Amino acid sequence: MPGGPSIDPEKVLPVLLDFIREQDAAAGRSRLVVGLSGGLDSATSAFLGVRALGGENLAAYHMPYATTSKDSTEDALLVASELGIEHEIVDITPMVDAYFERYPEADAKRRGNFMVRTRMAVLYDQSEKRNALVLGTGNRTESLLGYTTLWGDMACAFTPLGGLYKTQVRQLATYLGVPPRIIEKPPSADLWTGQTDEREMGLTYEETDRLLYHMLDLDYSDEALKKEGFDPTFVDKVRRMVETASFKRCMPPFPSI
Amino acid sequence: MPGGPSIDPEKVLPVLLDFIREQDAAAGRSRLVVGLSGGLDSATSAFLGVRALGGENLAAYHMPYATTSKDSTEDALLVASELGIEHEIVDITPMVDAYFERYPEADAKRRGNFMVRTRMAVLYDQSEKRNALVLGTGNRTESLLGYTTLWGDMACAFTPLGGLYKTQVRQLATYLGVPPRIIEKPPSADLWTGQTDEREMGLTYEETDRLLYHMLDLDYSDEALKKEGFDPTFVDKVRRMVETASFKRCMPPFPSI
Repeated sequence: MPGGPSIDPEKVLPVLLDFIREQDAAAGRSRLVVGLSGGLDSATSAFLGVRALGGENLAAYHMPYATTSKDSTEDALLVASELGIEHEIVDITPMVDAYFERYPEADAKRRGNFMVRTRMAVLYDQSEKRNALVLGTGNRTESLLGYTTLWGDMACAFTPLGGLYKTQVRQLATYLGVPPRIIEKPPSADLWTGQTDEREMGLTYEETDRLLYHMLDLDYSDEALKKEGFDPTFVDKVRRMVETASFKRCMPPFPSI
Repeated sequence: MPGGPSIDPEKVLPVLLDFIREQDAAAGRSRLVVGLSGGLDSATSAFLGVRALGGENLAAYHMPYATTSKDSTEDALLVASELGIEHEIVDITPMVDAYFERYPEADAKRRGNFMVRTRMAVLYDQSEKRNALVLGTGNRTESLLGYTTLWGDMACAFTPLGGLYKTQVRQLATYLGVPPRIIEKPPSADLWTGQTDEREMGLTYEETDRLLYHMLDLDYSDEALKKEGFDPTFVDKVRRMVETASFKRCMPPFPSI
């Protein structure tokens, strides 16, 4: 199997920290808020935020729903306490349940997406209260695959990890000292109990990042991808996902008059 | 005073209808949902949606909060009944109050923005239920001035009015037969009781659209704008608004690695 898209964290880190500081300066705000899910991306983003601006300028919010696993909450609190940053738990159950009382038939996907968007509304409100910016936590793999909730978890002022594949985020997290249990647990959007990203999408980040890297960064042809050992069915599947998700990476279009 | 950016609705209308049909076809969905506030933009968008796809393919949602004026609700229902489309009233008070119970000190602006984002979450959930797209209602003036809630009212699949200034939307609305009382009432985001856009921003759409047209479409210099009769203080103010709001017209940035 071909090599993956490895990074040198020592070289990448200063680029990310400069980016955060520049974005903050351009917006005229020095503080950030971040949503901590308990997962890898938000933990790594919080570590970056603290490195860039100092712990006193980052406030974290964990926003569980009734079905959010206890582990997620513990891991979110672990990150906040490792970083020594101000944090608050905002239970979104009352807001979400107030809505779905009207629509008891709604399935887990609808409920999950509504939760993600509610978290965005909470986080933006808190940023307004603190005159802060919302620190994004999205990575390149999930953006390319469309494994995000539009106007939900992708909504932020800027997203330092947006140019990194998931496996690269893992490398960076190790370098930054993110707690190993957060790095090692299976990634999950926690939309419902027991969900994991890889099971839901039917692929692994390791293999997918390798493919995306060869397909997009190295611009390999289908023929060359096959020679590199990628299964054509898998290539087709991932390419279709990337194309289908393109609307999630653009502002809403309008006709020019 | 210089002339404004007038349109010929007879020529513009087919462009907008084709755009809606193309967007729908590209997304593989034939149905739309729209949020009807009772105001001009959403009414005009609903009229366009029906003209493009037929009334059976558009479902409207009016999403009042406790402080939403009775007039707004009446006007939203008037539009739905004129068009003969399926519609539902979803009161967002329970969701919004469940959140602000924790933060009773929150001011009207925070509450207003949270409401707008809650409406987005509701509308997207309804679109998921109906396998429909969210029809955007934003116009060019409010987008340029930043008079929108980020990830709130600007969040949609596409926005047919996005290339039209507010005064052009009014022209189009008249041509489409939108009820006159909706065209004639003072535009309001209804974020709090008695709010009007023009009072809040301290400008009129008529004058601002004329300026934006000369500044951006005709690319007039400051000197030329002054000769055309525009007050330099007003020019500065509007230019600053357009620049400050640029972040609302872009996807969140990230550093490329």
